[in-house]
Amino acid sequence: MKLYSYWRSTTSYRVRAALNLKGLSYETVLVDLVAGAQKDPAYITLNPAAAVPTLVLDGGAVLTQSMAILDYIDATWPEPRLIPTDPLDRARVLAVAHSVALDVHPLNNLRVVLALDAKFGATSAQKSAWMQGWMAKGFTAIEAHLAPNTPFVSGDAPNIADLCIVSQMYNADRWKVPLDAFPNLARIAANCMAVPAIMAAHPDNQPDAKEIK
Amino acid sequence: MKLYSYWRSTTSYRVRAALNLKGLSYETVLVDLVAGAQKDPAYITLNPAAAVPTLVLDGGAVLTQSMAILDYIDATWPEPRLIPTDPLDRARVLAVAHSVALDVHPLNNLRVVLALDAKFGATSAQKSAWMQGWMAKGFTAIEAHLAPNTPFVSGDAPNIADLCIVSQMYNADRWKVPLDAFPNLARIAANCMAVPAIMAAHPDNQPDAKEIK
Repeated sequence: MKLYSYWRSTTSYRVRAALNLKGLSYETVLVDLVAGAQKDPAYITLNPAAAVPTLVLDGGAVLTQSMAILDYIDATWPEPRLIPTDPLDRARVLAVAHSVALDVHPLNNLRVVLALDAKFGATSAQKSAWMQGWMAKGFTAIEAHLAPNTPFVSGDAPNIADLCIVSQMYNADRWKVPLDAFPNLARIAANCMAVPAIMAAHPDNQPDAKEIK
Repeated sequence: MKLYSYWRSTTSYRVRAALNLKGLSYETVLVDLVAGAQKDPAYITLNPAAAVPTLVLDGGAVLTQSMAILDYIDATWPEPRLIPTDPLDRARVLAVAHSVALDVHPLNNLRVVLALDAKFGATSAQKSAWMQGWMAKGFTAIEAHLAPNTPFVSGDAPNIADLCIVSQMYNADRWKVPLDAFPNLARIAANCMAVPAIMAAHPDNQPDAKEIK
């Protein structure tokens, strides 16, 4: 398999972590989002949204959209389970995962920051306030769904919701979102980063990671 | 079951359509998003994100997040299937559904328009350009995934991707997004609206629909 990935992309981080947790090997193809490599015509034929991640299976099938890719990975290599099989458990875990993937992340990525710049001449402080504001709003809702004493979202092992949380918390750290009000999210992110398969997927551990001041 | 819903909410539309396609009966509880009813403390205890839809099952379980609710509905009442069971078919259908639900809709809803107003004093023309721009960008990517001659995303019956498309196309019409470049999306939306169960879920057919000039 080939995974088209960018180190700081939190959606790539989710998929890297899932592949690692399943013990699957894959080749990483670097897509430099800041340099605009996602707009290369050859890449667009793989992923018409000009986004990462893209997973190309050994048979040649091309998968896009991180949450659809995670669904495929979990259906194809079921151990360890990332999405419960019981419909109600599944709905609860997906609700937390989607609270990150649909309510927080889409408002907090590079293309949106660039659009605020281009369309409204947003200052650096306004961009930070935008990022921090949506994350704080989303985190407040998610925190209310989480139990106070479990290591992960549902018990003792990370699932799809934990992968969404740990990757979004990386972005929260990057944008200096105050986290005092979110002890459950902070605990879950710390526990995820203590899992070697997840830590290996962390942006700082990717071949394209850069030191940014 | 009780569905907390708002007529113009495209995420509510998706869930209404799914419940109707399955032939399930449910009580609709109206949440007036424009009046701020979603911020009522009693509602927040049900849905901490202060969003619609929320589905309360007969046993009392509370489900949030439209895509997680659709997953639950399909797992619990499998006929007609809205999400394929084969992992690769499933990944492809979810990729289209998520292209709407993660890449388009989150940037195109009421709370974002209000934020552009509050933070950047966006004019009416700037707000229209924002809505039209993200929809056109997302639709361009989705159009590339669609086959030119099938009535729906995958063949002869609507699935979860079609439900995401028809509801987003309602919003596109509302914001006057030019659709000439998107014949596949237009055909799919028209075919969806010819299905009585989906048309019954259309915003204009809800009890809280208002005539808006």
